[in-house]
Amino acid sequence: MLRFVVLSLCVGVPAVWADDEKDIRNVLDDQNIAWNKGDLEGFMKGYWKSKDLTFVSGKEVTRGWDETLARYKKRYQAEGKEMGVLTFSDVEVKMLAPGVSLVTGKWELKLAKETVAGRYSLIVKKFDDGWKIVHDHTSG
Amino acid sequence: MLRFVVLSLCVGVPAVWADDEKDIRNVLDDQNIAWNKGDLEGFMKGYWKSKDLTFVSGKEVTRGWDETLARYKKRYQAEGKEMGVLTFSDVEVKMLAPGVSLVTGKWELKLAKETVAGRYSLIVKKFDDGWKIVHDHTSG
Repeated sequence: MLRFVVLSLCVGVPAVWADDEKDIRNVLDDQNIAWNKGDLEGFMKGYWKSKDLTFVSGKEVTRGWDETLARYKKRYQAEGKEMGVLTFSDVEVKMLAPGVSLVTGKWELKLAKETVAGRYSLIVKKFDDGWKIVHDHTSG
Repeated sequence: MLRFVVLSLCVGVPAVWADDEKDIRNVLDDQNIAWNKGDLEGFMKGYWKSKDLTFVSGKEVTRGWDETLARYKKRYQAEGKEMGVLTFSDVEVKMLAPGVSLVTGKWELKLAKETVAGRYSLIVKKFDDGWKIVHDHTSG
């Protein structure tokens, strides 16, 4: 731990933010693992369970955790749909303020017949039960 | 002014945030006016003049103010291109922390032969010279 703090100080990153970044990356890693198990409810644990969660995809905005889950189910678990294999890359975490971060990255989804890809911007906030995505803007 | 403060307190919005929201909306309004005059440099005044500005559109990410201006020029002012008439709607300003906000909204661009539309999510931060967009994710 001491080595970690010293290293953080040496590269000019507050140790607490380095910890935050690790925690935030864990949220995304957990989402990724859940998705690739076909566990949509597990994937949704990364999102703020609130009617004020906002999810923007292309031209559309979805408001609320329940509505976001319903959208994912319709798109990836309905008849003839598949969840595929998800990969995140080029992930960057920027602290905007204590307890508030902007996470950007690339997503790629390998489906049976095609691979689709795009980018996301997430606002991730710290709550008592950990970091949660409060806003997701995704495009491809 | 007193009436404004009282009103702000009554609806549970700190007066300073109500002022911030007004200032942030002004930045977008100024961008809109500049765009519709064909003034791309004026439009770019809303963005943080930094190499760390990030602009995500669809699958692509552009890094830096100069690079973002170059992208806009190529897309809207090159031979055979047009800037069209831009409208913003459904604009929502959320304060994430003092001096940091998330702005979401809809954009519509009327071109000679078609109208294109989409949504944006902006991170807008307060600097000594006013509020500036530090991250823009747009999709359509």
